[in-house]
Amino acid sequence: MELITSTLDENDHRLLRRAIDLATENVTAGGGGPFGCVVARDGVILAEGKNRVVEDNDPTAHAEIVAIRTACSRLGHFQLEGAVIYSSTLPCPMCLSAILWARPAAIVYGASAEDAAAVGFDDAAFYAELSRDPSERKLPVLQALHAEALEPLRAWAKSPTRVEY
Amino acid sequence: MELITSTLDENDHRLLRRAIDLATENVTAGGGGPFGCVVARDGVILAEGKNRVVEDNDPTAHAEIVAIRTACSRLGHFQLEGAVIYSSTLPCPMCLSAILWARPAAIVYGASAEDAAAVGFDDAAFYAELSRDPSERKLPVLQALHAEALEPLRAWAKSPTRVEY
Repeated sequence: MELITSTLDENDHRLLRRAIDLATENVTAGGGGPFGCVVARDGVILAEGKNRVVEDNDPTAHAEIVAIRTACSRLGHFQLEGAVIYSSTLPCPMCLSAILWARPAAIVYGASAEDAAAVGFDDAAFYAELSRDPSERKLPVLQALHAEALEPLRAWAKSPTRVEY
Repeated sequence: MELITSTLDENDHRLLRRAIDLATENVTAGGGGPFGCVVARDGVILAEGKNRVVEDNDPTAHAEIVAIRTACSRLGHFQLEGAVIYSSTLPCPMCLSAILWARPAAIVYGASAEDAAAVGFDDAAFYAELSRDPSERKLPVLQALHAEALEPLRAWAKSPTRVEY
């Protein structure tokens, strides 16, 4: 890990520490999930997020999703080119994929999926679920109406007003 | 696939067809992403979603995320026990993971990740990215401050007010 961590500087540590502080605040302020996130570009914070799953009745309201949505809203764009995502814990597969869609430059994180699993979270279990062949996943995933389902994709390919993302 | 598809009935087809219609409407109504989703329980629609990434400047606003957030908001709960997610195209890894967190009973979909890739979407590429070892992913993922990052997780484990999810 020395080669990798040596690319981070004090500014990265400051921003990651802010994400960790947000995570701790979220627990101590009322029992929210112990996760925080900072989105920054050129060392300047664009947005912060805390886990709001229980508070908002929203299973997608992980710290990273909250921070990405806020940053994109402020920028008025659906991508975060050149930004760095600082997460107190390694983003779960939902958040990692959201980050891929947002197309930032890098992710910096503190605790691992195994650390989160040790206090009861399913991040590691869901990484394992996604690594399985779809036919071997625990959640049933069934396909139907394939020919009909191609129609909207074809309409998109022909649409003169589409904006690719 | 015969064994799997034979477990679906006409009601499932009706709900999946609604998701496909939402996808087509989203394209024809203004160039939005060609994806729709319906969340239903016992055959009754709890919420619908269309892709709103470009419209809302929100890279997380995939049809499934929109539908899950709406369904959970209406139910006043952060899980969708017993529900079925009907998606016009196989959910991308972000949406599949969001669905895992929401804990419904099953997913039913029409088009494949490869079908989406054929018209320019990165669903299949992102499934491949997640299947790689973290050290081999294209997006740099760097770890730091591990000991500090364990603090919020420990605070959570000791919190008497935590709500597990």
